[in-house]
Amino acid sequence: MDDTIEFYFDFISPFSYLAYQRLPGLAARFRCRLAPHVINLAAAKLLAGNTGPTSRSQPLKRRYNQKDKERWARRYGVPIENPTSHEPDRLNMGTYYAADRGQTDAYIAYAWRKVWGEGGDMGGEALLRDVARHCGWDEAAFLSFTQSPEAADRYQRGTQAAHDKGVFGVPTMIIGGEMWWGNDRLDFLEEFLRERTAAPAPAE
Amino acid sequence: MDDTIEFYFDFISPFSYLAYQRLPGLAARFRCRLAPHVINLAAAKLLAGNTGPTSRSQPLKRRYNQKDKERWARRYGVPIENPTSHEPDRLNMGTYYAADRGQTDAYIAYAWRKVWGEGGDMGGEALLRDVARHCGWDEAAFLSFTQSPEAADRYQRGTQAAHDKGVFGVPTMIIGGEMWWGNDRLDFLEEFLRERTAAPAPAE
Repeated sequence: MDDTIEFYFDFISPFSYLAYQRLPGLAARFRCRLAPHVINLAAAKLLAGNTGPTSRSQPLKRRYNQKDKERWARRYGVPIENPTSHEPDRLNMGTYYAADRGQTDAYIAYAWRKVWGEGGDMGGEALLRDVARHCGWDEAAFLSFTQSPEAADRYQRGTQAAHDKGVFGVPTMIIGGEMWWGNDRLDFLEEFLRERTAAPAPAE
Repeated sequence: MDDTIEFYFDFISPFSYLAYQRLPGLAARFRCRLAPHVINLAAAKLLAGNTGPTSRSQPLKRRYNQKDKERWARRYGVPIENPTSHEPDRLNMGTYYAADRGQTDAYIAYAWRKVWGEGGDMGGEALLRDVARHCGWDEAAFLSFTQSPEAADRYQRGTQAAHDKGVFGVPTMIIGGEMWWGNDRLDFLEEFLRERTAAPAPAE
């Protein structure tokens, strides 16, 4: 049985932040591994033919999304604040630096908190330095990595690989050949995990 | 207390069909009136600055949406089939003909069933005639109405009125100054209705 929940995200996405508040616990409960994959959402949308304007640039949708985010945050009992900037690329690429050191979970959890829990400046060097310190890294080395061709290449390849699996937005969860898009589909994922646990094991 | 759930829909929307499978029962349970408002979704999106391509024209999103619709239909225990055409305007405008005769609910329920329950040709005259027969109307008079300037004018004004209330997509539900977008937000609407019922009445 496939025991890995693939989790595609971009730090620009508040609904990925919200999904992450619930996913680690969900994975643990069903004895699954959570495998986070950072992607460049803007690039993934273009790859998928989604050339429309962002929700942020549509006033009615932006206003509604603000309310919607707050409703979910209240339901989950977590803080949510709007970041002061929306350039996630360096923070996104930093995920590879964390992965190379076996610190993906610590990095992601802290970055989410800073960006969407506290409303940080997601593209600013002050926040990047803060995250590096939290993880016990040399700040300059980390900053340099987030501007390296290596990081850009992994970011581009990771986004393409996600697209190749059918990912067109975030958060997206994949397990057992099934895919769900959106924080608001975690109930369906949970139902899938529960039903499959309850089902008799297939005959050899 | 505001006892009317405003329900904005367009027959092109499968998620409006799905929401309608649950809304009448929800309204009845909380002693609310359900007030359906048909709109021109394509026009409402443009009014809201949403100039992007439809989901149907994005292959990955289209494939996922197909799966997603089927999951919801299974959860609700209702059939879902893709219509053979996607021109909803005449069927949408027919809603006014039904409203003028006090038959809105019968019209909508039957039209949903034909279009998304059975996968009908939503823009075709055969389906329009079928719906007219079901409602006991003169078929020719109904067909003529759906091409009249009067119907077009009401459709345009209804869409503008929805936009003025903040509607940018369907299904949208509004009650008590709160708005929810999407079949997948009915749980939040239900929670709102339950909490308000449980709350003590405000002092005079």
